[in-house]
Amino acid sequence: MTGAARFAQQLEFIVAIDKLKNVLRVSRLTDDSRAENSAEHSWHIAMMAMLLHEHAGFDVDILHAVRLLLIHDIVEVDAGDTYCYDEQGYADKQQRERAAAARLFGLLPDDQRDEMLVAWYEFEVMETHEAIFANALDRLQPFILGRHRDNGDWRFRARTREQILERMDPVRRAAPALWDYVTSVVDDAFTSGRFGAPYPWELAPSP
Amino acid sequence: MTGAARFAQQLEFIVAIDKLKNVLRVSRLTDDSRAENSAEHSWHIAMMAMLLHEHAGFDVDILHAVRLLLIHDIVEVDAGDTYCYDEQGYADKQQRERAAAARLFGLLPDDQRDEMLVAWYEFEVMETHEAIFANALDRLQPFILGRHRDNGDWRFRARTREQILERMDPVRRAAPALWDYVTSVVDDAFTSGRFGAPYPWELAPSP
Repeated sequence: MTGAARFAQQLEFIVAIDKLKNVLRVSRLTDDSRAENSAEHSWHIAMMAMLLHEHAGFDVDILHAVRLLLIHDIVEVDAGDTYCYDEQGYADKQQRERAAAARLFGLLPDDQRDEMLVAWYEFEVMETHEAIFANALDRLQPFILGRHRDNGDWRFRARTREQILERMDPVRRAAPALWDYVTSVVDDAFTSGRFGAPYPWELAPSP
Repeated sequence: MTGAARFAQQLEFIVAIDKLKNVLRVSRLTDDSRAENSAEHSWHIAMMAMLLHEHAGFDVDILHAVRLLLIHDIVEVDAGDTYCYDEQGYADKQQRERAAAARLFGLLPDDQRDEMLVAWYEFEVMETHEAIFANALDRLQPFILGRHRDNGDWRFRARTREQILERMDPVRRAAPALWDYVTSVVDDAFTSGRFGAPYPWELAPSP
């Protein structure tokens, strides 16, 4: 395939993933002005990977971790964001995301399609160092946004201390040095009654 | 400095750069729903670097290029986005951005502050392969968004063909293979009268 033919396919993919900027997450910006979207979230965690890899408890190939982080949410262009405590949404998450990965990465030349599929799957399965580290950051980032909201108004939607510690467990595995921060924030939230805010799908829609 | 003390500084920076998500660019999303922000733009061009480096006319260290792309707009948290054809804004751009770089990167531990300052400066000076390649993508991305708008309604705000070709020149330098795409789009725009839309600061504010 010529360079021009490859570029035509890459261009189609580049245009398709522009839509990730309109996929809204449950997490809100620190200034509480609006929900975060998955594209800017991906930028934020890639930046975190470059800054925080020194805290990893094992060797991490940073470029590889950054790749996983930049790619991991692209399936949401078709499948939407599934909130981590949404049990109903999780039931068919895998099926929806596999179909999305096949369509979206399928826009690329075959070799790049395969690379992207493997990277996306590696992130999901969370067995390599880079995937554990990347998942840790993916979970740490909304935790940080929630805790460090400008207006000091923060609550966890998780129902129990155990629920959030289980969700955050990749941080313990990837970067034990950061686990003290996580547990101290969770303990503080627990003792000050900051657990149990309504899940988004329990809230009435805005009038 | 202990790991915990370093993390405390890194955390402050991570929270500070959340504000990049509220820095709006002149460029609009392909669905024309809203202006793009600098954080999601940075994600998009980092993805493009991973996909398009095969078209570079010289060797490119991809991780290094991705670093430059993820970092290069952070100064806009303080300095705002300066539109590429805004001559007035460009007059004090350098001064505003230097002050922003000093404050924002200064939140980090000294070694990381220095690394970030150097990377930001490297992008701006555009002399290394990675910086030329990164600048090429930074300019190609809004060009692609503009051309591939869902509704087919696209115009360049540049006043002349020469003005836009000069702006896009890093693409010619970094990836000659992609220059045909650029010139064909520009020629098409020129022959179909798609040049000379008003600059944003010439438009009346919305009522």
